[in-house]
Parts: sequence; structure tokens; C-alpha cells
Amino acid sequence: MSIVTLLTDFGLYDQYVAAVKGVILQIAPKVTIVDVTHQVAPHNVLQAAFVLRQVFDCFPAETVHVAVVDPGVGMVRPIIAARYSGQFIIAPDNGLVSLVHRDFVLEELRAVQNPMLFRKNISASFHGRDILAPVAGHVARTGRITEVGPATDKLALLNLPTAAVAADGRIRGQILYIDHFGNALTNIERADLERAARRRSGLSVKVGEQQVPIHQVYGQVPAGTPVALVGSANTLEIAVNQGSAARQLGLTAGQDVTVE
Amino acid sequence: MSIVTLLTDFGLYDQYVAAVKGVILQIAPKVTIVDVTHQVAPHNVLQAAFVLRQVFDCFPAETVHVAVVDPGVGMVRPIIAARYSGQFIIAPDNGLVSLVHRDFVLEELRAVQNPMLFRKNISASFHGRDILAPVAGHVARTGRITEVGPATDKLALLNLPTAAVAADGRIRGQILYIDHFGNALTNIERADLERAARRRSGLSVKVGEQQVPIHQVYGQVPAGTPVALVGSANTLEIAVNQGSAARQLGLTAGQDVTVE
Amino acid sequence: MSIVTLLTDFGLYDQYVAAVKGVILQIAPKVTIVDVTHQVAPHNVLQAAFVLRQVFDCFPAETVHVAVVDPGVGMVRPIIAARYSGQFIIAPDNGLVSLVHRDFVLEELRAVQNPMLFRKNISASFHGRDILAPVAGHVARTGRITEVGPATDKLALLNLPTAAVAADGRIRGQILYIDHFGNALTNIERADLERAARRRSGLSVKVGEQQVPIHQVYGQVPAGTPVALVGSANTLEIAVNQGSAARQLGLTAGQDVTVE
Repeated sequence: MSIVTLLTDFGLYDQYVAAVKGVILQIAPKVTIVDVTHQVAPHNVLQAAFVLRQVFDCFPAETVHVAVVDPGVGMVRPIIAARYSGQFIIAPDNGLVSLVHRDFVLEELRAVQNPMLFRKNISASFHGRDILAPVAGHVARTGRITEVGPATDKLALLNLPTAAVAADGRIRGQILYIDHFGNALTNIERADLERAARRRSGLSVKVGEQQVPIHQVYGQVPAGTPVALVGSANTLEIAVNQGSAARQLGLTAGQDVTVE
Repeated sequence: MSIVTLLTDFGLYDQYVAAVKGVILQIAPKVTIVDVTHQVAPHNVLQAAFVLRQVFDCFPAETVHVAVVDPGVGMVRPIIAARYSGQFIIAPDNGLVSLVHRDFVLEELRAVQNPMLFRKNISASFHGRDILAPVAGHVARTGRITEVGPATDKLALLNLPTAAVAADGRIRGQILYIDHFGNALTNIERADLERAARRRSGLSVKVGEQQVPIHQVYGQVPAGTPVALVGSANTLEIAVNQGSAARQLGLTAGQDVTVE
Repeated sequence: MSIVTLLTDFGLYDQYVAAVKGVILQIAPKVTIVDVTHQVAPHNVLQAAFVLRQVFDCFPAETVHVAVVDPGVGMVRPIIAARYSGQFIIAPDNGLVSLVHRDFVLEELRAVQNPMLFRKNISASFHGRDILAPVAGHVARTGRITEVGPATDKLALLNLPTAAVAADGRIRGQILYIDHFGNALTNIERADLERAARRRSGLSVKVGEQQVPIHQVYGQVPAGTPVALVGSANTLEIAVNQGSAARQLGLTAGQDVTVE
């Protein structure tokens, strides 16, 4: 009884996700399939990498994560199968694993090349259904990636923005992700904040021209008021209590943030 | 083999729902998870209470319903676990159970307080993942809520609008919910309508300035024409055959409705 | 361990899909339920027929496909249960099976009429929950449609547009479906294209006033450039590499397309 997760930019309007699920179930009928999201912005690999990292440690050992966000479908770019800290990822080799790679242990890496595992007819535009799905079904059923193809050490990784702590204790970071509540998730870690807090008290966040106080929970400020806190990703998050920080403060992914 | 349902305002854009599912499956790997909806309007507890009531008797005994629509996350508000007519609900104690409470038998009520069942690190903003999910996994696996915390009799309930039958047989009620087809579901029950119909014939519904005839099925009026009927919730529903009553008649939740 | 798929126009906002799933699980608790899509345009039977055909051969034998896109709910129109090439379809008899019917073998066809299999109280407006769901649960559990009602040979079929190959080798077809990426899927088959390509070289597609070159994969043209290819449905597809052909070229379902 194993688990396969799906992370794509296929949306929920078409039948593409269902086609992938059907092919997985043809091969591994007892698998439990979980949708991570299918609403990654089309071809946005960084967003997909972030989302994959966020859910990764919520799943049990041997979970098979299939991620298909792939501007290069049909072109000559490899598909990889990796084992990180006991879980599997199957994805195009375009940097999708970058944040998991940063935070977990790479135990095995293979190029997906064994055509015996693919669907009989491979379309030019739907490798998710024709290659990744049947390979995922196989990995879920066997619990290993040994058969998918040869070991490799080539792995595309994204150039990730990282937060920097200055000598005076200021932390400079970036917004990585805006969620559907309008909360802005940054790359500033709890540990850096705690170190900074030991030097200075009354820390606040500066984003654009706006100064936002840091608290423990949303509800420590009145409804409609901006607040920053260490969020569920264990990083600094900018929110508005019962409102949308993205709309109210005009925040976007990529924007600079300073803690001072 | 038990079932866990999820009812949230998390949306389908982010990975939050998947994180909750992963944590449940870490604890109860054989559970079947069903999404009720994740598109409750942010923090709209009444809408969530209505939706939970609508699906409640469609599920088998021992189903565990997890509802997370929670303006007060991170603040000091209890989480409850309840057994109603053989099924379980785990939710913040904010009135989410109100409509199930009105229509089903409360058999057991507990405050969720046992930290042994929680995730190791509890974030300030994601109790769905860190508290409700692992507790739901535990309840699904054991089939009981005994271990989640002490019995309690404190339960927050919403002030629900109810339909009233006047001496002259008129029924005055409210629109509770607008569905995505644009159908307006009211709180006027089939039984009240049948009682009124015994007194008078040719009943119709008045909403705003509009008079809508009551029929058995949508198709008794031409396409594009308003019609009222006893809908799938066993209450009066205002629709437009093959169209949207909400748009065409300008209907909104909370609006008054009279049967005469 | 069997599979039930759901294909509806219920959307994901309301609890309707969950109600259907709950009823199925009350009867067949071990079934795996897969969403095909719930975002068919309200009452668009042709779109649903296309989507059902697209996923049909991705699923294993004995899968039960439940399709509920039904302008005539509550009126006197039959519900059918069919077996095509070892899989089952349960749907209103309104043409939903048309494209599967064209491409697979009809092995058994029955009118769904056995009230013993229905829910106790049947609403006027939600046959998906009250009739199709419990019947699907029964079929999934038993692996046969024998009990659902009498055999019939009445079957509603849509008048499908077909592509025509002219004497000079030109192919005239139609756009059947626009997906959420903005790709336009036509009814021009790979085989017809290959036959035409034997007669002439340098084939291109004419749609409106626009001429689009035919290639193997999206990436053979620069990002933002229109390209036609044989897509994942094994038919001609008009796309824009990393963009939306529907938006950029103004394409809609039903539009004529010529290969020359």
C-alpha cells in the first residue's frame, strides 16, 4: 500500500490529471494517489520546487512524488528518478528537486530511460501520461528505482535566492511564494530570526515602504492589520490578520524583504 | 478501512491540503481521503457548517470529518472532537458543527488536548496540518475519540436563521447558500411547504420583487425561466432551468424569501 | 479493489461531488475514486463526451465511469449502464457515450431501472447522488451491470463532426476542445495526416486567416510562436510554444481547420 503524489501545472479543467492517474492505477491498482496541486503557474519550475519542498516531509517513507512542470516537454531533456531520505521523486531534470535537494539526503539518482516501463505509444506532448505515470506506477509497486535506468550524477539545480544576515544583524531575504490567502512566504529562516532577536529587540520587517511588526500569531493584531510571523514553513511570513497581505501591501514573489 | 473527509477554506492553489493528507497518511496509511470542498469563502463558518450538514448523511458510519475553517487559528480557542450518530467530526470549536448538531444525535464530545497525538513542532498558523490532521489519522485508525482529550460539554453554536410559518400559512425564510450553478438553497423545509400546500393551492415564492412558481423539477419550465422546487437538500430551492438564478434574479445568501 | 471515475459539471465549489463519493463509499467502501473533471461547462454534453473518450483507455478493465452532465435531470430521460471493451459507463442517455461508442466495443447495454439499488428518497434535482452513485457503487462491488435493469438497444448518440479528406489531399476538420493551456484539439487524425503527408510535403494548418506550420514537438518553434503537431489525443493540435494558442490566435471549439 504505497502513495503517489502528483504536482503539475495541468489545472483541474481538463482530463490530463485523470489520464495520469488512470495509467498509474493500471500498473499499481492499490496505490493511494494524492494531488499536491495542479495549479502551479504554467511552466513555473521555481514555484513547483517550493511546493514540493513544503509537502515533502509530510509524507511517509517510500512515497513516490511525481512532479510535471515542464517547459521543455518533447525536447531532449532527461527525466530523473531520485531517492531523497527514503522518498522518491520522478520529474523532468529541470531543477524541480532543487529545494528538496537542499534540505534532504540524496540517496540514489537515476536517468529514466527504460522503455520497457513506458506506455507503448509515446506522444510528443504528454510525457506525464506516457512516461512519468507508468514509471511512477512501477516504482510505487516495487518500492525501488533500480529498474528505471542507469545511475547518473547529472542533476539540474535552480539558482536559489538565499537570505543573508549582515554584520549588524539585519537580515535581507526575498518573498518566495504568495499563497491563495495572500500570505507572503519568505526565505528567512526561524533560526536567523532568533539569532537576530538575541541582538536587538522589537524586530520588524520592512517590505517596500511598509514596516510590519513581528508577532507569534495572526490574532495578535486586529483584523485587517499587517503582521509578520514564523509561518507553517518555519520561515518568516508576511500576512494580514483575516485579510490578504499580497493585495493590501502589494506584495509579489521575488520582492526583497529586510528584518531590522 | 475508514474514511476521512476534508472541508476547508485552503483552496486548491497551494499545497496546504496535500500537507494535511500526507500527515493523515503517515499515521493511517490505509485511510480513504475525500475532499468535501476546499473553496469555502475564507473564514466563512456558516457556509462550512451548511456544507458539512449537506454531506453528513451521505457518508458511512465511522467516517471522520475534518473541518478547518478557522478565523481564530493560533489564538486560544479549543479544538473539539465529536461523535454524531456514529460519525466523527474534528474541528475548531467555532460553530462549524451547528447544522449537524441540529439534525443528528451528539453521542460524545471531547476537547482535543492530548499533545502525544500532535505533530512534534506545532506552527502558529497551520493547526490543520499540525493538530487536526494527526488527530484525525489517530481517530480513523482507532475508530474512537477517547484518547484525544477530556470529555467536555462546552460547544460553540451559531445563531441559525430559521424559517417561520405564519398563522395565515405564509412561510418566511432565508437563502442559506448559493451553489456554483447559481441555485439558491433556502432554509424552508419540505414539510412546511407540504403543510402550506394543504391550506392553499398554487403556491409561489416571493424573493425581492420577483414571484417564482413552485414545480417538481427544473424542466417543467422553459430553459431560462425561474422555478422553485424542493431540491436535493430537501428544502426549497430557487433556480433557473439551465441557467443561473443568482445572476438572473440577483440573489445572495442571507436574503429573505416568502412562500405564499 | 475496483475504480470509479467521476465526470461532472458540478464544479469544485460545492459539496455535490463529495455527496456522490460518500454514497459510493457507503456501498463499496474499498473502491478507489478518481475525479476525471468536474469543470465541464454546465450542461455541455459534447465536451463531456470528448473528455470521457480521452481518458477511457488510460484506465484498467472493470473501471466504472460515472458521467453526470445532464440538462434534463428530473425529466423523463433514461439512465443507462453500458460495458465497452471491459469497462463500464453509467450516465444519462443523452449522448455522453458517443465518442467512446465510436472507438470501443459495446458489449452490454442496460436501462438503469432497478429501484432496489437507488437511495431511499430520490430528489428531483440530484440523480447523481440518489441514482447514479449507488448504482455505481453496486457495479463496482459486483463487477457487472446485470442487476441494474433490463437490456436495451436504445442509445442516444450525438451528431459528431468528422474530418473529411478531399481528393486533392486537403483535410478539413474542426476544433473539438480547447484545453486550459489554450491548446486547440481537432478531430483530424494522425492517420489522415500521414496519408496527406505522403502526397505533399511541407504541410501546414490553416485556421481563420492564420497559417500554422506542423512540427513534431512544441519546442521546434521559438517560445510564443504557433505550432501544430499530433498531440496526446493522437489528433492534430494547434498550440503556441509556452503560450496560449486560443488567446493568441482567437480559437474556439467548433471552428473549421484545414490542412494543406
